[in-house]
Amino acid sequence: MRAPERRVSARDEWVSTAHPEHGPHQVPLRFLWDGQAVWRCAGATSVTARNVRKEPRVRLALPDTFDVVLLQDEAKCFPAREVPGGPAEAFAGKFGWDPRAEEDVFLDVRVIPRTVRAWRGEPELRGRVVMRDGRWRA
Amino acid sequence: MRAPERRVSARDEWVSTAHPEHGPHQVPLRFLWDGQAVWRCAGATSVTARNVRKEPRVRLALPDTFDVVLLQDEAKCFPAREVPGGPAEAFAGKFGWDPRAEEDVFLDVRVIPRTVRAWRGEPELRGRVVMRDGRWRA
Repeated sequence: MRAPERRVSARDEWVSTAHPEHGPHQVPLRFLWDGQAVWRCAGATSVTARNVRKEPRVRLALPDTFDVVLLQDEAKCFPAREVPGGPAEAFAGKFGWDPRAEEDVFLDVRVIPRTVRAWRGEPELRGRVVMRDGRWRA
Repeated sequence: MRAPERRVSARDEWVSTAHPEHGPHQVPLRFLWDGQAVWRCAGATSVTARNVRKEPRVRLALPDTFDVVLLQDEAKCFPAREVPGGPAEAFAGKFGWDPRAEEDVFLDVRVIPRTVRAWRGEPELRGRVVMRDGRWRA
């Protein structure tokens, strides 16, 4: 399956963030790919949310370590109730859970990837950049 | 399978590092768990090696995003030929590849975990710390 389609069907991804003082952090989060952006949901007081506010650069990876899909870009946080209706409805539909209905404050973290790398094992390490500057490469 | 046994049988893990200026980085690497430490191999000029020299704190995760095993500690780099014989032989045996024989310079990155978290889905988020201060908890 090609990288764009796999982003639709997968459920979780590994989210790597960093903080200048506290170092790296890595956690699995559910995500929605709406064709342009990746939406994830994190508690407003979570380490992921704290880090993204301080250092917006993030790395996202589908779980498979052999058939690799890695995204790189800056993330932006939205309070759950300020997420546009389209992605918010799609997220709720995909997971049967709507963060907008929660009493605890949840943040949606949007990433519009500009760089995507994909490879299967070392022979494909060359040519692994499949999106550059926001454009899928043939 | 419990966390210690899964570390023996698995092949790759997601390695998350950070750099104070360049932000987070995340990459899949082959690893060896020798019962006390995790050994991985990275090119001496790789981003992982560059980051660990500047910021030794790392996060390591087995690929599965539902049955989670996450390690946290500081990493230390060794030139491949300075790795103790036991782990070096075991690494070469596991992967059929011995970094000590390569002409390109490779580094071994050792992590002796002091904190390990493991959980399956949200119901197990409480009690997810299975190692603290280097001791497995019952």
